[in-house]
Amino acid sequence: MKHHSIIELIERKRDNGTLLPDELQWIISEYTADHIPDYQMSSLLMAIFIRGFNAEELGPWTEAMLQSGEVLDLSNIASAKIDKHSTGGVGDKISIPLAPMVAACGVAVPMMSGRGLGHTGGTLDKLESIPGFRTRLDKKEFVEIVERLGLVLGGQSETMAPADKRIYALRDGTGTVPSLPLIASSIMSKKLAEGINGLVLDVKTGSGAFMKNAAEATVLAETMVGIGASHGTKVVATLTGMDQPLGVEVGNANEIAESLDVLAGGGPADVVELTYSLGADMLVLGGIDTDRQSALARLKKAVDTGAAMEKFQEVIVAQDGNPAVAEDRSLLAMAPLRYELVAPTEGYVAKCDALDIGNAGVRLGAGRSRKEDEVDPGVSISIHAKLGDKVDKGQPLATIAYSDEARLEAAKPLLSRAWSIGDSVDKPELVISRID
Amino acid sequence: MKHHSIIELIERKRDNGTLLPDELQWIISEYTADHIPDYQMSSLLMAIFIRGFNAEELGPWTEAMLQSGEVLDLSNIASAKIDKHSTGGVGDKISIPLAPMVAACGVAVPMMSGRGLGHTGGTLDKLESIPGFRTRLDKKEFVEIVERLGLVLGGQSETMAPADKRIYALRDGTGTVPSLPLIASSIMSKKLAEGINGLVLDVKTGSGAFMKNAAEATVLAETMVGIGASHGTKVVATLTGMDQPLGVEVGNANEIAESLDVLAGGGPADVVELTYSLGADMLVLGGIDTDRQSALARLKKAVDTGAAMEKFQEVIVAQDGNPAVAEDRSLLAMAPLRYELVAPTEGYVAKCDALDIGNAGVRLGAGRSRKEDEVDPGVSISIHAKLGDKVDKGQPLATIAYSDEARLEAAKPLLSRAWSIGDSVDKPELVISRID
Repeated sequence: MKHHSIIELIERKRDNGTLLPDELQWIISEYTADHIPDYQMSSLLMAIFIRGFNAEELGPWTEAMLQSGEVLDLSNIASAKIDKHSTGGVGDKISIPLAPMVAACGVAVPMMSGRGLGHTGGTLDKLESIPGFRTRLDKKEFVEIVERLGLVLGGQSETMAPADKRIYALRDGTGTVPSLPLIASSIMSKKLAEGINGLVLDVKTGSGAFMKNAAEATVLAETMVGIGASHGTKVVATLTGMDQPLGVEVGNANEIAESLDVLAGGGPADVVELTYSLGADMLVLGGIDTDRQSALARLKKAVDTGAAMEKFQEVIVAQDGNPAVAEDRSLLAMAPLRYELVAPTEGYVAKCDALDIGNAGVRLGAGRSRKEDEVDPGVSISIHAKLGDKVDKGQPLATIAYSDEARLEAAKPLLSRAWSIGDSVDKPELVISRID
Repeated sequence: MKHHSIIELIERKRDNGTLLPDELQWIISEYTADHIPDYQMSSLLMAIFIRGFNAEELGPWTEAMLQSGEVLDLSNIASAKIDKHSTGGVGDKISIPLAPMVAACGVAVPMMSGRGLGHTGGTLDKLESIPGFRTRLDKKEFVEIVERLGLVLGGQSETMAPADKRIYALRDGTGTVPSLPLIASSIMSKKLAEGINGLVLDVKTGSGAFMKNAAEATVLAETMVGIGASHGTKVVATLTGMDQPLGVEVGNANEIAESLDVLAGGGPADVVELTYSLGADMLVLGGIDTDRQSALARLKKAVDTGAAMEKFQEVIVAQDGNPAVAEDRSLLAMAPLRYELVAPTEGYVAKCDALDIGNAGVRLGAGRSRKEDEVDPGVSISIHAKLGDKVDKGQPLATIAYSDEARLEAAKPLLSRAWSIGDSVDKPELVISRID
């Protein structure tokens, strides 16, 4: 690779210039090889934060990050390999019913998920509340399971996109996290390293989302779709609301229960709607169906025949979990104490704030405020009244299962301000738009 | 000191906000104490580079840097203590005749100078071409000499403004050098740590200056005058042209010779003009004279009576140099070989480029391209034709004294393009404006 001067490249980005593909690749490769020190990289990241990336810079930057480590070889799988990624929300357990439903319809799903941090939950934490379930899989095992079952539910491998891991940690310490191009390239470098043929993105917007407003979320979605295109991978994004939690369960074991409800043909309407909608995108991307209507019918059939639940049980077995949870919910953890939050007055639910409820979950022990925290799988917030619902005075808004009084006391102020009761409001649209 | 979150402060500057005085002080003090790592500081410096400093930020930032180390205590000196600083140019030996002239008139001059880097020469390098002359003085010795003689010519102490030293080194490696507020605060923190009552600035503009255009140089000068005011120290700045070298000698030993000419009452008109002009500012700032006219007369008298030369010889003796150079120029080094650059055609000198001549000096060995290089004190460029001078074809433009043929060959392309001969041009004004 041609040698460049890192200082000249920093100066060019600082002065609003454009970095060329081989320069971007050189930066990532030299940083990963410890030839560019953190203090130079952080200066460049701040310049990128303020000046942005031009369209022609983002693809090569993402490509270089994804090429910084291993790329999964799933060429032994004949069917299409499609993954789904959500930008994170509260009560967002969609991946858990979605992946087995889609896999049951013949698309391979090599899913790599993350842990919860801050107010947003993490799919790995939820899965680990299934007794015995193991998400830490080495590359060989990960590939072996998806080759055999068409489905695997693991964590991010240490050897994939290591440049992203290091750059993310540096951004975290240097005030350069909320940069749209840096977020987009971080997500896409990890996902594209999975060796997938297509990706379905759930981009959240609203109080409980990373992107608070829909315009910004739309740009993020478009940016990620564009990166996919420049890599030659089909990406479809759906913009969805995250002002209130998804579904009625917020926690870990209780979100598994809600996911099992969906796989059994039940579950709350919003979770069902979004699971099927994203599933249809995955089947169309994977070439199983040519239109969303037939894909939706196929997904319903996979649920009705029990094929989707069976696929979930197969992957639970493959990952050392107890598949009996499907029939026996008492195998899932449940915290011993109960607290009921009630409506202070009669009216309509005008606010059911995802951010406050997510943060209350963290204070109760269902989430993490620091990476090294442990989660308590049995802590749960079960929601009884969502946006637009009519409630009487004293009617329960939520039931909290908890295991520590002090933690409940810490969570109470957030819980009580999370809801407000007012005049009749329209129920919000869950799916705001689709970008492909 | 109240604790702050460095990430929050980086984010605020990144988003164009204002940092408060105690926050700026905390940043400098924590960075100097190694509690803030380089990668956070470089991210902040890039944000400062792009967003700039507001007027209310620059004073506290400079103050914190100057308070990061020792501040000289010159309170034993009854007279005013005034220093001079130049932003750097080619052939700029002004400090050398200026300091003894002013000291001979009763103002104490605790002068701390720098070394040459790149195309600009350094006063310390020039002084060290006086046989035996020692510029590395410890604080005690520095203070003792200026207390005794009213004059000392030393280098920057390691213990003064250490934050500036570290931040400068970090900027050098992170593409954040040419930032006006960072340059201004760097210069002023070091100068104000000298414990002076007043400062005279020579801000250069033109091809051989750091600031290529006069508008930018004016803002830099105003910024530094403002920092002085916020610190309570009187600062007067003069904006001077640096499109062509100052005087006729560029090098080290030969610049000492030219300086001795000025002290002896001779020397080139431009060097004489600027030396007296800055000297008058120093005498007025020091309260010796109330107007520049009487100050100019006093400086002339100090030269005519030999008092200025005598003061220079005293300081040479105090700093272990041989004072006989004043009478015997053969004590100064002179490279053995000669090369004469001649006019290719008849006409008027339309260009005598300071940058090219400065860089030719570096290639010949008179300057440094890297900090660790040694300078060859006997290498010199003696200029025979400057802007607006009429020359005949074949008439010498410059004589080069050199010691290495390969180095001369490397310098030749710069030397021949440095001059151009054209139609009659006006001689440029040396002093462009004064800011106080």
